[in-house]
Amino acid sequence: MSRILSARDLEFLLYEWLDVEALTKRSRFAEHSRETFDAVLEVSARIAEREFAGHNRKGDLQEPTFDGGRVTVIPEVESALRAFHESGLLGGALDEEIGGLQLPHVITRSCFAWFQAANIATSAYPMLTMATVNLLLAYAGQEHVDAFVRPMVEGRFTGTMCLSEPQAGSSLSDVTTRAVPAGDGTYRLHGSKMWISGGDHELSETIVHLVLARVAGAPAGVKGLSLFIVLKHLLGPDGAPGERNDVVLVGLNHKMGFRGTTNAVLSFGDGTHAPRGAAGAVGYLVGEEGRGLAYMFHMMNEARIGVGAGAVALGYTGYLHALAYARERVQGRPPGDKDPSAPPVPIVRHPDVRRMLLASKTYVEGGLALILYAAKLLDEDSPDAPLLLDVLTPIVKAWPSQWCLKANDYAIQVHGGYGYTREYPVEQFYRDNRLNPIHEGTDGIQALDLLGRKVTMDGGAGLSLLLRTMGETTSRAPRELSGMARALDAARGRLAEVTRTLWASGDPRTALANATAYLDAAGHIVVAWMWLEQAIAAHGKRGAFYDGKRLAATYFFDHELPRTGPWLDLLARGDTLLADLDDDLL
Amino acid sequence: MSRILSARDLEFLLYEWLDVEALTKRSRFAEHSRETFDAVLEVSARIAEREFAGHNRKGDLQEPTFDGGRVTVIPEVESALRAFHESGLLGGALDEEIGGLQLPHVITRSCFAWFQAANIATSAYPMLTMATVNLLLAYAGQEHVDAFVRPMVEGRFTGTMCLSEPQAGSSLSDVTTRAVPAGDGTYRLHGSKMWISGGDHELSETIVHLVLARVAGAPAGVKGLSLFIVLKHLLGPDGAPGERNDVVLVGLNHKMGFRGTTNAVLSFGDGTHAPRGAAGAVGYLVGEEGRGLAYMFHMMNEARIGVGAGAVALGYTGYLHALAYARERVQGRPPGDKDPSAPPVPIVRHPDVRRMLLASKTYVEGGLALILYAAKLLDEDSPDAPLLLDVLTPIVKAWPSQWCLKANDYAIQVHGGYGYTREYPVEQFYRDNRLNPIHEGTDGIQALDLLGRKVTMDGGAGLSLLLRTMGETTSRAPRELSGMARALDAARGRLAEVTRTLWASGDPRTALANATAYLDAAGHIVVAWMWLEQAIAAHGKRGAFYDGKRLAATYFFDHELPRTGPWLDLLARGDTLLADLDDDLL
Repeated sequence: MSRILSARDLEFLLYEWLDVEALTKRSRFAEHSRETFDAVLEVSARIAEREFAGHNRKGDLQEPTFDGGRVTVIPEVESALRAFHESGLLGGALDEEIGGLQLPHVITRSCFAWFQAANIATSAYPMLTMATVNLLLAYAGQEHVDAFVRPMVEGRFTGTMCLSEPQAGSSLSDVTTRAVPAGDGTYRLHGSKMWISGGDHELSETIVHLVLARVAGAPAGVKGLSLFIVLKHLLGPDGAPGERNDVVLVGLNHKMGFRGTTNAVLSFGDGTHAPRGAAGAVGYLVGEEGRGLAYMFHMMNEARIGVGAGAVALGYTGYLHALAYARERVQGRPPGDKDPSAPPVPIVRHPDVRRMLLASKTYVEGGLALILYAAKLLDEDSPDAPLLLDVLTPIVKAWPSQWCLKANDYAIQVHGGYGYTREYPVEQFYRDNRLNPIHEGTDGIQALDLLGRKVTMDGGAGLSLLLRTMGETTSRAPRELSGMARALDAARGRLAEVTRTLWASGDPRTALANATAYLDAAGHIVVAWMWLEQAIAAHGKRGAFYDGKRLAATYFFDHELPRTGPWLDLLARGDTLLADLDDDLL
Repeated sequence: MSRILSARDLEFLLYEWLDVEALTKRSRFAEHSRETFDAVLEVSARIAEREFAGHNRKGDLQEPTFDGGRVTVIPEVESALRAFHESGLLGGALDEEIGGLQLPHVITRSCFAWFQAANIATSAYPMLTMATVNLLLAYAGQEHVDAFVRPMVEGRFTGTMCLSEPQAGSSLSDVTTRAVPAGDGTYRLHGSKMWISGGDHELSETIVHLVLARVAGAPAGVKGLSLFIVLKHLLGPDGAPGERNDVVLVGLNHKMGFRGTTNAVLSFGDGTHAPRGAAGAVGYLVGEEGRGLAYMFHMMNEARIGVGAGAVALGYTGYLHALAYARERVQGRPPGDKDPSAPPVPIVRHPDVRRMLLASKTYVEGGLALILYAAKLLDEDSPDAPLLLDVLTPIVKAWPSQWCLKANDYAIQVHGGYGYTREYPVEQFYRDNRLNPIHEGTDGIQALDLLGRKVTMDGGAGLSLLLRTMGETTSRAPRELSGMARALDAARGRLAEVTRTLWASGDPRTALANATAYLDAAGHIVVAWMWLEQAIAAHGKRGAFYDGKRLAATYFFDHELPRTGPWLDLLARGDTLLADLDDDLL
């Protein structure tokens, strides 16, 4: 069995639960069938195994280097990306007319999970390129689509998102990069950008940076931000990359994990190059001035789902490695069985090892269900789907970042001392996954987004929709699952109630000071819902796989959902400790 | 203010809470005074700052290497150890007649916390030597004390504990290293030992390995284990190290953290050397045959408290770094304050950053209180003290391993992207601390020890004593703290009740399958007790320091103690899910 991801679980989620085959009735997907879906899934598993997994450790040990103005990356990355591009998966969900395969997002998301699980660092390059492509298709003019997007879909150009600056990470309203109109329709940019994944390398003919900057005279705050395309190499009249633009790599960041992805500090317009004989990096405005952050949210929302998916993928492969190890590694006897002459048993027989594995199973399979549910919302033409996705996005990003990371932590623990060494892959999975609660908006930012924006917008329409959708599930639950359905109904009832209480107080400071407890509670309730959904899909089916789903659902409802009790209690009483805290006392 | 540890907090815990000065009335400590205590604490802080902290990162980056039969360690380690030995702290708690300073353990534990916080990897060498010394003083004959212990106290020899083997880590009953009587009172040992910290290096004249092995013909299981002293270099007639014994370094382990400590696979008696012309590593029996594990538990209990202390120290320094960063780093505006023209604020003003810092404060200060409380039990002549320490030991080891590690996780999160880079020390603190839930008995082993042994021994005398001792605290609580006292009384009542329920069922499998939930609950209740103790000690005192203690106690009771609810519920209903689990379903 693969230790990267479970094809069987994907099959269950896609076909037995989400009924993805039914999407082929939509005209957009009419060319597809279960056979084509299975074919791209199998190709993904194969390329992930053959081209991505093999250099995962090497990429961690041999980080990109910056010498003589060039970034060097281990050669395996280039061949892995070539195989990925040749598969056509980079444009998997795109329209055929732009060179895409016009697959449902739920399929391309499943495909990409194989690459993320096999090698999160190498998979970051196409992930960023895909996000760049999608943003430009949504907001850029046809000229830019033709010039920049098509070569990205073909794998010739790569993309990045340049938001953060050294003094402005979570707080994008403080972005100071300047853009000055050059008089010819282009702009000249000056400033520094930080944490730019894929920010420099020689893996593509040029790099398409999407850069948030402030046009001279624009208002302070996020309303003054505009979005620009800034190429590393400008395109010549033939559309081929040529002259260097004034985008310069200042240095590479050296991270705890994700080491195989170049992560750069970039300087725009510092005068190293003077493209077309003038100062500043040449930039092309995307859409309208002042709408930069709104456009970027398109990319960020996609990236947030991608981060959640990456967290799930890393947790999942960690779980599979731990499970395989626990079945192979023989040591000791279960507690209560103290006969020293009895042969030792595989450690999977020890209850505490099982506890960690079962908990991990609920985190990673529950997380994967959540990711695929969210991806399928992109494929649906129901009017509710975008709103439901909107309210779920902070949970889709943050919950796996926390709990699938916990699965990686357990994977180390199951391996014992061996898991703490760099001879086993689980410690790298942990280090890689530890980025996910930080980037694309920290989990704290997701909590503020959920409680401060998503559940209040449109008079609470998003939260109402979410609670109602969960209710549709509980009302479908068969009698044998009525205990879970009742528990979920009680939990969603309490969530609705504390949300009202928090906002009824008219004191946003207190409400928002407890936003993390709210996100924690909402996340666990949503994943309990995902488990009830899976239990319903498995209902009446026989065999170890379905019994495993029932067992995991039972565990999640018995051991995990009760965690929400103290969080909801805290929210219900409107705890003011954090809001009123005098930080001199820390 | 130091970012290593808080001298002010130590002062509060030692003098305002634990009344350590009163120990000087005991004849053992009659030579001491608050002045001598303060002097060794200051010396420790100074040496930790000057000699240990500086190479903490370098030791992580430049791991020990093994080449040409020799282990090379960065030179700063040797000079740090020299400074440590010159301070006399290695024998801090030992009798004066063996060259010790005869200080209370609570003082030497506080001193050593400075070194652990400054550089956990370098501090591991003296920690192991101290544990070796203490075991030999307790069980070895005078001849071995004179030959091996005195040079260790002087810093000339170092010590190790050799328990684990490649196939036997948690399960010591499966140890297979053999010892054959040589006919001259010595033994010859053959076997492999794994995970030996300080297992080889050139930092001392010789290394004193304490090795668990099985004498030919001994019974299976732990009752067949004996303990041996095995020197790297045998001592000549003059007592000076000379001829190589047949202990050979097979390889070094490469860990996620703790990289500065050599961690070795050792082979005993593989024939590389043939000391005194015969096969096998020369070993000297400690005490009696068959009592090896009992002796080793002396060392292991000490090492477990040391591991808990190390976890606290790493969490503490992580918290202090995060706090300092949060006061310096300016970014964004608190939620609800959206005026983009308002100046950005230090991130300590953001409620979610405060939440992480305050939670961390309760973990690390609560953990330090627990460690010092346990250390002081070693100094007391009350007949109850050893039993109380015995029941607390698994909590002292496991609780900081989990929650002070969480403080390190939060320290990364508070730093955001910067905290995830190797340019800031907090990611190393996390990696270093991640070992602590694994070594000296995994947290799962601690849970079995607590529920399966410590709370049942002597008809439950240990647990009764613990609960009664907590009750003495709640009965001392002033009226203003009566809410906390009531909450703690309720919690200890529930702990007593679930313990009875678990064991009354007569089904140890089910009880032990939930041992981790029991440890989690007991740990949080014990630390709540530590916080009530601190709140009482701070009661009626004015100033930010004491207000901070009150705030932290409030947080722990309001936000942390309620976590025990779901764990206790699970235990109360005797959940059988993990005990009965079919591992084919994972």
